[in-house]
Amino acid sequence: MNETPSGLAPDELAAWESFIRMEEILIGRLSRLLRADSNMSASDYLVLVKLTEAPDGEMRFLELAKIVEWEKSRMSHQVSRMVKRGLVAKRECPEDARGAFVVATPLGYKAIQDAAPMHAQHVRRLFVEALTPNQLNTYARLSQRIMEHVKKQAD
Amino acid sequence: MNETPSGLAPDELAAWESFIRMEEILIGRLSRLLRADSNMSASDYLVLVKLTEAPDGEMRFLELAKIVEWEKSRMSHQVSRMVKRGLVAKRECPEDARGAFVVATPLGYKAIQDAAPMHAQHVRRLFVEALTPNQLNTYARLSQRIMEHVKKQAD
Repeated sequence: MNETPSGLAPDELAAWESFIRMEEILIGRLSRLLRADSNMSASDYLVLVKLTEAPDGEMRFLELAKIVEWEKSRMSHQVSRMVKRGLVAKRECPEDARGAFVVATPLGYKAIQDAAPMHAQHVRRLFVEALTPNQLNTYARLSQRIMEHVKKQAD
Repeated sequence: MNETPSGLAPDELAAWESFIRMEEILIGRLSRLLRADSNMSASDYLVLVKLTEAPDGEMRFLELAKIVEWEKSRMSHQVSRMVKRGLVAKRECPEDARGAFVVATPLGYKAIQDAAPMHAQHVRRLFVEALTPNQLNTYARLSQRIMEHVKKQAD
């Protein structure tokens, strides 16, 4: 099969573009709605979801960066902004070389609890209702397979 | 079917989580690789792809914000950062009420041309190779359907 200038075969490139354009538009739309409804960025929301799902609402800084696959510098800027707004706090562990914790504050819990129902409505309207139940199951199964594949790949 | 606290049925929520976790990890990984290979953020890359695909490498500011579904303020910050780095330039249109253009500079074209082959290799390894050709076609078709659905929905 011929390769495009990108080094992908035409149908591979078309598949990637279908996915990435959908991703840009869906995530862009959800981010815009989140900002309008709850005055949070998608990154604020993601960090708060991960922390509030963790035991005691806290996670080591490095572990947090790792599960969302962000560079340390990006997470560091993000956490600083959220500390200033009172959504999270840092808890240093001087006696533990594994590093500081990031903790969701009561304000952080409240922010995510207030935002989640509206966010879920947008997810239903924009994503769930786009597909039939069978299509949705297929899409979930293939997404899962891609995620497992990515996790197995070294950088 | 019972609803979860999020207001989605359990299998709907599971489908969304499969998608969004994969998206976080895949886009996080690709962004990190893009930064390491080419010293660009995913936003830099996206803006340059859209501009260099457009006729004459330029697009109206508002049109650019619209196709990626970003708020105007986010695009404004992004364009300012890229102007400082010489990747894009602004072209004002005083006689035209439809607003300023954003233009890819020769440096912007070079940046995207240098970055694209490495990016394509990562896309192949992390995304294309995760699925069989049939699965990839199905995934592309369903992604396309979601995108068309999102575009039809008002905010």
